[in-house]
Amino acid sequence: MTEPITSSAQRLERQLDFIRELDRLKLVVRRTSLIDRSRLENTAEHSWHLATMAVVLAEHAPEGTDVAHVVEMLLVHDIVEIDAGDTFAFDGAANLGKLEREQAAAVRLFGLLPPDAARRLRALWDEFEEGTTPDARFANALDRMQALVQNDAGGDGGSWRQHGVTATQVLARMAPIERATPSLWPVVLQAVDRAVVAGHVRDDRPAA
Amino acid sequence: MTEPITSSAQRLERQLDFIRELDRLKLVVRRTSLIDRSRLENTAEHSWHLATMAVVLAEHAPEGTDVAHVVEMLLVHDIVEIDAGDTFAFDGAANLGKLEREQAAAVRLFGLLPPDAARRLRALWDEFEEGTTPDARFANALDRMQALVQNDAGGDGGSWRQHGVTATQVLARMAPIERATPSLWPVVLQAVDRAVVAGHVRDDRPAA
Repeated sequence: MTEPITSSAQRLERQLDFIRELDRLKLVVRRTSLIDRSRLENTAEHSWHLATMAVVLAEHAPEGTDVAHVVEMLLVHDIVEIDAGDTFAFDGAANLGKLEREQAAAVRLFGLLPPDAARRLRALWDEFEEGTTPDARFANALDRMQALVQNDAGGDGGSWRQHGVTATQVLARMAPIERATPSLWPVVLQAVDRAVVAGHVRDDRPAA
Repeated sequence: MTEPITSSAQRLERQLDFIRELDRLKLVVRRTSLIDRSRLENTAEHSWHLATMAVVLAEHAPEGTDVAHVVEMLLVHDIVEIDAGDTFAFDGAANLGKLEREQAAAVRLFGLLPPDAARRLRALWDEFEEGTTPDARFANALDRMQALVQNDAGGDGGSWRQHGVTATQVLARMAPIERATPSLWPVVLQAVDRAVVAGHVRDDRPAA
């Protein structure tokens, strides 16, 4: 099966290297559990859930959103965690150095690809991280929403309760939802109310 | 937090029901293991891997392929497994009744959505299953390719070896790759050669 190394063969080999590397995202464990609480979820399945949510919730996206572009962004938005690991949103200490870890991861991981593809996927990740375009704002809102759905639907407060997060902290974390997808904001308020009533998050919201 | 039930609130509730149900795809275990062989992979993370492969391997798609449409198709192509379970390709007995199980699953699962979204996602699944459009042919080729990559990259023959699959059976299973993405076919031939040389699959190919 020997064949001359052509540039298209080398290109394909780099694409396959990247695809094999992607397998490791299935090993990155998040703080959020599956709704049945049988185990923590991993970043690969989280990314699938999010991309599919973008398809299902497209009508809630900001004006000018390109849903196909959002889906691509969500597929790649957490690939850096293969090297950098998942950083729990509510863990201040762990978030120190996150930026540097993820930048180095992006260079190595996207750098496995042929240069044009590396640039394209890197640009998707940068756009998500910057969070300023309508597409990135929608993608970020969905990312927050997915964690809320997982925590709320299990009925036990999930990672909020386990890590002693307060109502104000949850609402601050969910703020991108109010800005990008206001039609989904009532879902957040109701979930936080339920968590407070159930005693899963402490109610430190200012009195009305 | 009482508010009148409006049709848009009901619509959102159905979208959320579906999104919560999707979580269960993370519990469906396939026969293919992660490349490091630490565990079997699940269908949700498999779907993410496939959708991302479509982005990376887009240039190998048949003429006329709409990659964004392929990505959506791959995100939903295995959702029926929430009810119907994963059916191992090389298990003849298990494949009896698969069609009926999956049809019933499609009716229930997509039926959780508002009717217009149900029709749209069902159409994506039907297109994948029929496998006749360029988009569906590319999606099917990637689905075969992903299993091959997982089996090949682990260096132990993976599910091929575990289940005593022969070279001819692997090549027949991979035939959609040759038809839809001929530029990827050498990867298949090389992987099968490697598996034969390593003694992981029996070589029952006709002599040249």
